[in-house]
Amino acid sequence: MSVDPPDTAERTLRSREFAVLYAQVQQFYGDQMRILDAHGTERWTGTFTDDAVLVPPSPSEPVRARAGVVRYLRAGAERLRRTGGRPAHWVGMLDVRPQEDGSLHTRCSALVYATPGAGGSPVLYVCVMEDVLVRTRGTWRTAYRRVVRDDLR
Amino acid sequence: MSVDPPDTAERTLRSREFAVLYAQVQQFYGDQMRILDAHGTERWTGTFTDDAVLVPPSPSEPVRARAGVVRYLRAGAERLRRTGGRPAHWVGMLDVRPQEDGSLHTRCSALVYATPGAGGSPVLYVCVMEDVLVRTRGTWRTAYRRVVRDDLR
Amino acid sequence: MSVDPPDTAERTLRSREFAVLYAQVQQFYGDQMRILDAHGTERWTGTFTDDAVLVPPSPSEPVRARAGVVRYLRAGAERLRRTGGRPAHWVGMLDVRPQEDGSLHTRCSALVYATPGAGGSPVLYVCVMEDVLVRTRGTWRTAYRRVVRDDLR
Repeated sequence: MSVDPPDTAERTLRSREFAVLYAQVQQFYGDQMRILDAHGTERWTGTFTDDAVLVPPSPSEPVRARAGVVRYLRAGAERLRRTGGRPAHWVGMLDVRPQEDGSLHTRCSALVYATPGAGGSPVLYVCVMEDVLVRTRGTWRTAYRRVVRDDLR
Repeated sequence: MSVDPPDTAERTLRSREFAVLYAQVQQFYGDQMRILDAHGTERWTGTFTDDAVLVPPSPSEPVRARAGVVRYLRAGAERLRRTGGRPAHWVGMLDVRPQEDGSLHTRCSALVYATPGAGGSPVLYVCVMEDVLVRTRGTWRTAYRRVVRDDLR
Repeated sequence: MSVDPPDTAERTLRSREFAVLYAQVQQFYGDQMRILDAHGTERWTGTFTDDAVLVPPSPSEPVRARAGVVRYLRAGAERLRRTGGRPAHWVGMLDVRPQEDGSLHTRCSALVYATPGAGGSPVLYVCVMEDVLVRTRGTWRTAYRRVVRDDLR
């Protein structure tokens, strides 16, 4: 096994930039999910770009732009409310790939759990989010999201 | 959608500082919870400042200073031991807000799970911790903590 | 409570280096587990060094070098496939300790969950991984791993 030599100056710079982006994106997802859990769909869509595209788990059609995203999410929230639980989200397993154009391709897992949990397991399911993030008006926002739920396949 | 221009030198510096703090705080919470799970409450209180204040989930009174925190935690540990399981903690969904005075306002979720799990779900519940961290004697410590458990509301 | 003075230049440099490593290792574990979940054991062993040693939960013997790791993992995957579920991994609670020789001593928790989940809790168990990571051929790889499962003790 040969261990790699120390980093060049350029590689060090890129590594630092990656650490900055990785921390920012972790903070972003924490914020985005807390806003969804605490304030509902309307305010949540502010964490998307105006022209964002959301691709829900199949077999739904892609949902375009904020208005569509609000409608889609409100329907989902309504369904969940009827089941009695209030779902909350936990994001992790983050993968960040900086792109040449300054956008970020990210992938993360979201664990959805119910609270309050009246007995039983609080964990409902896990889905994967594949996003494109862009920085606009001073903050990262989701421009594209594909949601994958293995348990619905 | 207009994408933001590249960062100024000052913004780059602040972003780097944020990445440093975010990594340190992630490491801090991992440590703090591992100490609690492995070594119990006495040693755990060393991760708090001497005059730390702990606000438990309502309707309890705030608990002041290390001696009080030790008493409070010991009682909780005793309760859990009687239920048979040994709880462990998983922290994530970290939000870090650096303050002017050098302290950090943080928010994170803690998933509490039982191990060994004799069948059933290992996940017990999720709570939220709202902390003020300060750096004293070479390391971050919790100076204030409010614990919120949605399932007890 | 006395708050620490600002960092020296040397401490700042070390803090930055730590943030870089912490981000890289988070990305590494996300990758490593996703490869395992999506592509199976053969490709997964590429995330280990050629001479890696894997210490499974007792009472098994340590498994040496990639060929052994492949055999060991294939057996485990077979067992899981027979139970019907497809397990996925969620890594968190990361602790990173840079060593003088450039390697990293890490510790993290892995939550193993089943998908698709036919009712019941998707969470199966949590184990702890104690690794030595080295950077070879341009990327971090696991040179040593000890897996601890408290529920098997």
